[in-house]
Amino acid sequence: MFDMPTILNSAARAASAKLAASLGLPAFEPGWVWLAGAGPGDPGLITLLGLHAIAEADVILFDALANEALLKFARPRAELVYAGKRRGKPSWKQADISHALVSLARKGKRVLRLKGGDPFVFGRGAEEALELARAGIPFRIVPGVTAGIGGLAYAGIPVTHRDTNHAVTFITGHGIDGKLPALDWSAISRGSPTIVVYMALAHADELAAKLIEAGRDAHEPAAIVSDATHDEQTVRVTTLEHLGRDAKESTAPAILVIGENVRLREGLDWLGVLQSGRTLNPDPLGRIDIKHAG
Amino acid sequence: MFDMPTILNSAARAASAKLAASLGLPAFEPGWVWLAGAGPGDPGLITLLGLHAIAEADVILFDALANEALLKFARPRAELVYAGKRRGKPSWKQADISHALVSLARKGKRVLRLKGGDPFVFGRGAEEALELARAGIPFRIVPGVTAGIGGLAYAGIPVTHRDTNHAVTFITGHGIDGKLPALDWSAISRGSPTIVVYMALAHADELAAKLIEAGRDAHEPAAIVSDATHDEQTVRVTTLEHLGRDAKESTAPAILVIGENVRLREGLDWLGVLQSGRTLNPDPLGRIDIKHAG
Repeated sequence: MFDMPTILNSAARAASAKLAASLGLPAFEPGWVWLAGAGPGDPGLITLLGLHAIAEADVILFDALANEALLKFARPRAELVYAGKRRGKPSWKQADISHALVSLARKGKRVLRLKGGDPFVFGRGAEEALELARAGIPFRIVPGVTAGIGGLAYAGIPVTHRDTNHAVTFITGHGIDGKLPALDWSAISRGSPTIVVYMALAHADELAAKLIEAGRDAHEPAAIVSDATHDEQTVRVTTLEHLGRDAKESTAPAILVIGENVRLREGLDWLGVLQSGRTLNPDPLGRIDIKHAG
Repeated sequence: MFDMPTILNSAARAASAKLAASLGLPAFEPGWVWLAGAGPGDPGLITLLGLHAIAEADVILFDALANEALLKFARPRAELVYAGKRRGKPSWKQADISHALVSLARKGKRVLRLKGGDPFVFGRGAEEALELARAGIPFRIVPGVTAGIGGLAYAGIPVTHRDTNHAVTFITGHGIDGKLPALDWSAISRGSPTIVVYMALAHADELAAKLIEAGRDAHEPAAIVSDATHDEQTVRVTTLEHLGRDAKESTAPAILVIGENVRLREGLDWLGVLQSGRTLNPDPLGRIDIKHAG
């Protein structure tokens, strides 16, 4: 009557419900919208509250960056709607998504908007939530692990380390018009030893040129992490001057990181040890000058 | 024979194991150390992999910021060791913690180092991991939701929003010597419209003075979020010029945030709606100039 996966998924859903009860997680009420982050890709990096939301929702609008392996926890009759912006299909516009969220909630559905990473880190979650506020729809925000932190951790690159940086700046490479945002590159360059850039493959050459022009060392280490935390994760270690060239050979989605922290990968690439028996160097900063520490 | 909580916890542990199997999460092998983030406080914000680590570990060294409600998922005979730096007890030094991790792993234990937030965001996780690399102990990093993102989301403050900022800078207020780090405040001030500061209550007045001296508007909005995502969370909205004064009246742990994004709380304080029936203003930026957009 039921196929095996259905039975297994039902057991997994029951397990999720048990955990939710055990931790006293809030009930997902009809007519509500939850905006949740699914984390960077590894399904183990979703939060319990995020999983609970998937298991309880009547409708899930998910984007291209949310790992679809997680959708098996959905109710058997849940409506699963791909609202991403790739795959060659006509894109959902932001207004369409907001409209759908409001309209489904008004029908009394439990509506989950599931985004990759964290909904409030370059994810347009605030825009969608403000639309819900405007329409008087009750909502909850469920944070997630953002790729700029968790994705880099899977590449063995910590966004902070006491010997290298007391500040880190996160930038989007994709402004409202699709161009690199007009930031004060001199200030960005001097403010944080470590710079993490989201959605930046297309403009990596321009970004690197601006940082070098602003005084960052062209030979400074940089890395491009594609499909971070997914099975297909690839890490390309390079320098600021070669970032644009290497970005052209990398696949989206990707996170860029610039700064001495990239050198720490030599000592912290735990996934490389697991996957290819890499030997770690426990003193990755030992022989170098720390130029941008601050 | 067993008391009720023990039975419930055993059911919750079984549920965790079922989810781990369903998602193919990695086995926690004896002799390994996992460095995991527990998230900012709400137990629902731990990741599935983090929960799996708690459920499987033989020894858990947890710090002051990890929510102890999560420890009920530990094995009944797991050793739970508080390795924090508060509570008036003699503090564990960093070297003691690293030594304990190595020594326990060498005894063949599954060792979990559980930290609040994310281990690589101002959490000294990289230091501990490098010590493990030095000792040849295999390790895994389990990222978590960091308070500077997830904690602010529970205060209704998104760290990014297209109308206010394309860059956000995270700073620690607590340098190696316990003082405010010597950053280029002029660059920090101009680089990101939004600045998030960890562990900064003690030096909030100095921080605010440096930012104002560097050109930030003294009347700019700022907020202090204490016990973010915990039941006791409190949010104090203020201005840059009053940040030091208000920090003195706030309790640790706290996250500070400076920038126009704080105004978005008027439209996004979903927790305030839940807890006190607050009415949201869906146009929180409508009547103000956006001075620092970039």
